[in-house]
Amino acid sequence: MIKKINHIGIAVKNIGLSSDLFSKLFEQPAPYTESIPEQKATIAFYPLDESSIELLESTSADSTISKFIEKRGEGIHHICLEVDDINAEVMRLKKHGFQFVNENPSDGSEGCLIVFLHPKSTNGVLIELSQKM
Amino acid sequence: MIKKINHIGIAVKNIGLSSDLFSKLFEQPAPYTESIPEQKATIAFYPLDESSIELLESTSADSTISKFIEKRGEGIHHICLEVDDINAEVMRLKKHGFQFVNENPSDGSEGCLIVFLHPKSTNGVLIELSQKM
Repeated sequence: MIKKINHIGIAVKNIGLSSDLFSKLFEQPAPYTESIPEQKATIAFYPLDESSIELLESTSADSTISKFIEKRGEGIHHICLEVDDINAEVMRLKKHGFQFVNENPSDGSEGCLIVFLHPKSTNGVLIELSQKM
Repeated sequence: MIKKINHIGIAVKNIGLSSDLFSKLFEQPAPYTESIPEQKATIAFYPLDESSIELLESTSADSTISKFIEKRGEGIHHICLEVDDINAEVMRLKKHGFQFVNENPSDGSEGCLIVFLHPKSTNGVLIELSQKM
């Protein structure tokens, strides 16, 4: 079951500068940053009620974040939906014809398991599914 | 004060086809659609916990949704943040140098008052502020 919007991911060129900007917007101090080697990115979260806004800066020229910014510029990169059982959701959605970037859950931030649906099967929207462990 | 993520707006070419798709994704029936003349769009909402996903189909070739799809294809169009006092937020954010598409709140869906921050001042992210009336 899809429970809620866990976060919205925003691709940025410089997480320091963008943290200054979003800290003003959200009236929150600049957040703790975390490196996610699997995604070749450094991330930071701004909690907003039951969801959050995630900033992502690439740590490698060949990362998906680098390629996204090169093609489209900075901006909204993905939506993350929190699920109760990620393997059950992958099976359910595959039956409906949804396609995945990776079908086997990998490690996300804060110990979550994550998969990405392919945007070509979701109206151009990159959707991450995340299960808290 | 910014309270929470109210919704995520997704630009689609055909709201009927996209409703079929997202109904499968969210395990919800196709939602009620509403026409918003001020935005030259037909919209539909999928509630997800305390937020929702909004689909937007253009009703005019010169709408912002049409131009967005022409330039970038279907996909995530904007984030809507719910605020308690929209005029106070516009004043607060202007002092920080944020720019607006429109500074005077206009009518959004469900009787809300809305303004849009200009993406050039928010890292390429189109942000809507919305106050429930």
